[in-house]
Amino acid sequence: MKLVIDCMGGDNSPGANVAGGVLALEKYPDLTLVFSGDEAAIKAEIEKTGFTDSSRYEILHAPEVITGEDKPTDAIRLKRESSMMKGIKLLRESEDIDGIVSTGATGSLVAASTLRIGRLEGVFRPAFCPILPAMNGGIVGVCDSGANVDCLPLQLVQFAVMASAYMEHTFGIENPRIALLNIGTESEKGDELRKEVYKRLSALPGINFVGNMESRDLLSGKYDVVVCDGFSGNVLIKTTEGTALQLMKKIKKDIYSRTVYKLGALFMKKMFSDMKEFMNYQRYGGSVLLGTEKIIVKGHGASDKVAVAKCIEQARSMKGSGLNGIIAEKIAAIPEDEAEPES
Amino acid sequence: MKLVIDCMGGDNSPGANVAGGVLALEKYPDLTLVFSGDEAAIKAEIEKTGFTDSSRYEILHAPEVITGEDKPTDAIRLKRESSMMKGIKLLRESEDIDGIVSTGATGSLVAASTLRIGRLEGVFRPAFCPILPAMNGGIVGVCDSGANVDCLPLQLVQFAVMASAYMEHTFGIENPRIALLNIGTESEKGDELRKEVYKRLSALPGINFVGNMESRDLLSGKYDVVVCDGFSGNVLIKTTEGTALQLMKKIKKDIYSRTVYKLGALFMKKMFSDMKEFMNYQRYGGSVLLGTEKIIVKGHGASDKVAVAKCIEQARSMKGSGLNGIIAEKIAAIPEDEAEPES
Repeated sequence: MKLVIDCMGGDNSPGANVAGGVLALEKYPDLTLVFSGDEAAIKAEIEKTGFTDSSRYEILHAPEVITGEDKPTDAIRLKRESSMMKGIKLLRESEDIDGIVSTGATGSLVAASTLRIGRLEGVFRPAFCPILPAMNGGIVGVCDSGANVDCLPLQLVQFAVMASAYMEHTFGIENPRIALLNIGTESEKGDELRKEVYKRLSALPGINFVGNMESRDLLSGKYDVVVCDGFSGNVLIKTTEGTALQLMKKIKKDIYSRTVYKLGALFMKKMFSDMKEFMNYQRYGGSVLLGTEKIIVKGHGASDKVAVAKCIEQARSMKGSGLNGIIAEKIAAIPEDEAEPES
Repeated sequence: MKLVIDCMGGDNSPGANVAGGVLALEKYPDLTLVFSGDEAAIKAEIEKTGFTDSSRYEILHAPEVITGEDKPTDAIRLKRESSMMKGIKLLRESEDIDGIVSTGATGSLVAASTLRIGRLEGVFRPAFCPILPAMNGGIVGVCDSGANVDCLPLQLVQFAVMASAYMEHTFGIENPRIALLNIGTESEKGDELRKEVYKRLSALPGINFVGNMESRDLLSGKYDVVVCDGFSGNVLIKTTEGTALQLMKKIKKDIYSRTVYKLGALFMKKMFSDMKEFMNYQRYGGSVLLGTEKIIVKGHGASDKVAVAKCIEQARSMKGSGLNGIIAEKIAAIPEDEAEPES
């Protein structure tokens, strides 16, 4: 397996990206990598890790960096010398490269992947599917979490099909329970989009649609996949992340406010650190873009090296399970009137 | 001031509704109430409180109860003998009654209020504005949180104007900072709706629009009002509530898993109970429906008597500040091309 690692644009780039790549190289002997980014900086980071087998990696020199400030359309057009655009160009042109892992700007990654790499046959729009930890120890996928802000019913139906295949074949969850994000659980709830998608998912064979889900139940462990448009999906995951972080920050601040609390916290040190690890959803890797011809994994901007290595592992599992072939098959199997984009 | 208290339909009805009403009667000598619901049950609950001044309240006998299972349109048409519909009918017909407090079914309350009570002049659609505690000790209003699932740009502009007036005149927040819920902070982010609303709010005089907000910053204390369509607003507040609850539940479970944690938690008992109180957003009252001719306050379904009393207090503040008059003025002041509903 061969992957491009976009080494720029993340909060801890290029250090975490290179070191994460090296972690994965050490773990998987069949893996080779192309590090895309500033050559001198990448060389220096590789040296730091002590990894010496230069037959396992290449460096693609790319001096420019795409940031969140860049408009995706401008980034594609004007930043051709960036680590992301050069990496994606190489990925497109190289049959032997399977995918790319990036911790850079999400919008630009989606735009470049869709335009340059292309979609699987029948897929209307690719969609992100990040994985969150459920409170019962399980996991839950959210699809789409931000690649598509304006959605047609057909897209949500396809998100359900793609994410179901992903959870089943990459994470081994049998017959995944698919829910539709809505403002109530009753079938007639929601806006026009939700009402139509509810109808279509209910009638769709080969999928375990369990109905509407209210956002407060996201982490309940009762669902394996939550289907949503990219706008509300983005609100869903960022609110979850934000609330958890703010709350843990408040607990920390409260503990430091009184000696007796600090004393109590000493007994609970391990509990709090376990909790922090539990909530660290980077341990499940990144957010994969489902529906593209090659594997695109977007790591969190704040990814450390372990998170980057996880993203690579995730790309490996996706390839190993033949996910893209399965998705193409399942998309083709959606009944005709479901598959046609509406006006 | 005179209010209707819908005594049925909440998780703790009619007990919490009646007892909450009595708490408010005891606190505010100028207040009178109409308790709507099963007469015998209401009488029994009043008796339990020991409140004896029957000149301060009336009972409106209504044997039926509207639940979340009832379709709002059916509830209005078929459940005329319900505490909510009879209460709203009385409210409409009585010039001396200022508003209603209900902990019952949200959809039916919105539908009945809009259809039977009517909107303030110029208001296209009323919107909910619940109040959440921010992590810096302040508060933040979310408008709309679920009354309008399909929204036009004009609606979001009106939500901003109404919620700004609410935060300023009912909560005393000067020049409230208004943010637009979006998937990124940059001005060009989001779907078509967000892009249009961003443009309009930026150009609108008399409002302190500070730009886009990502949902992870909801509780940061950097914003006083977050403007959103009712679908994503509903996702926003229910995710916040759900994540906080699930996390506190997990902490509790973790504490009970080991003796040393239980020991530590003993030192922190007060901290955790303060925290619970901090997160209890019922202490800010209910979610008011902004833009209706009379005052409509929706208490959380799980409201206890203190929360119901808070809702009544909120209705009092709304009346005291002359909020509805101010809203009507500010809506009328929106420049012409902003005020016209689009096709």
